[in-house]
Amino acid sequence: MFGCLVAGRLVQAAPQQVAEDKFVFDLPDYENINHVVVFMLGTIPFPDGMGGSVYFCYPDQNGMAVWQLLGFVTNEKPSAIFKISGLKSGKGSQHPFGAMNLPQTPTVAQIGISVELLENLAQQTPVASAAVSSVDSFTEFTQKMLDNFYNFASSFAITQAQMTPNPSEAFIPANVVLKW
Amino acid sequence: MFGCLVAGRLVQAAPQQVAEDKFVFDLPDYENINHVVVFMLGTIPFPDGMGGSVYFCYPDQNGMAVWQLLGFVTNEKPSAIFKISGLKSGKGSQHPFGAMNLPQTPTVAQIGISVELLENLAQQTPVASAAVSSVDSFTEFTQKMLDNFYNFASSFAITQAQMTPNPSEAFIPANVVLKW
Repeated sequence: MFGCLVAGRLVQAAPQQVAEDKFVFDLPDYENINHVVVFMLGTIPFPDGMGGSVYFCYPDQNGMAVWQLLGFVTNEKPSAIFKISGLKSGKGSQHPFGAMNLPQTPTVAQIGISVELLENLAQQTPVASAAVSSVDSFTEFTQKMLDNFYNFASSFAITQAQMTPNPSEAFIPANVVLKW
Repeated sequence: MFGCLVAGRLVQAAPQQVAEDKFVFDLPDYENINHVVVFMLGTIPFPDGMGGSVYFCYPDQNGMAVWQLLGFVTNEKPSAIFKISGLKSGKGSQHPFGAMNLPQTPTVAQIGISVELLENLAQQTPVASAAVSSVDSFTEFTQKMLDNFYNFASSFAITQAQMTPNPSEAFIPANVVLKW
């Protein structure tokens, strides 16, 4: 489903699947890595309404894993370039790989991909210095996420004539979602 | 043999082979492309002593193809990221795709890969603004090319005891090559 490419090295197309929805690529000799490309292979898309958050993980001085959110890949934006060379002294962020206890080797970092709901991804803020492809990729992503949500929500839209009587169920007018 | 990835889009792994040693990827909507990743798939390496020069081709105002040398991929450095967003007003360079007459569409650019001798690649200078991965990638490449040449040349090295009598054949001491 995913590929990972360190600029200058051979492509990797077989991540380790550490949980049903989590994938990890090893990055040996990570001190000499500037840019990493994460992309979908084009074989299997994300399920509807889902995407992947991309994390960089490296061992700190005590050998503990530090995770930083780099950004996202989605069916609409299936690849991204990240600059990781400036991140090695940064602070860790919240991440969903907590219980994995991935083995830490001093010279090996990881790229972790977590498959999550697009709504959850949109609430996460990647480290700013990792963005390469385009300055406004996050804004674009958020806009697309909202578009997706509108499409998703409106796929359930019904008219009053189609409604079965159920006074306890609330309905939101579609144009409210669109305006938001 | 090659893959090509526009940051934000799906990966392409099936170039058009326009000659025995020349491969072309189409880049639709190239005005909206910032970065392109070119990489070897890892299936077939270059033949010994060969590598690939990577060109960006776009149509000028008159619809004529302008080719610019972005850089190289080799067995030792099988991938590279190039920034093409700054190149669209640049001057063309010498290129080996002259006789191809690839069809030019106003919104479609191309990535061309030409398989050539490493010695020839080392004499070509890519446009400086295209380098992303590392500032000294060209220096590194040249150094590696020289290392390769030394390894290549020294694989033929023999001692005087192994020489068959042939006074007309010249020999170069291995340490001369190494020093150079």
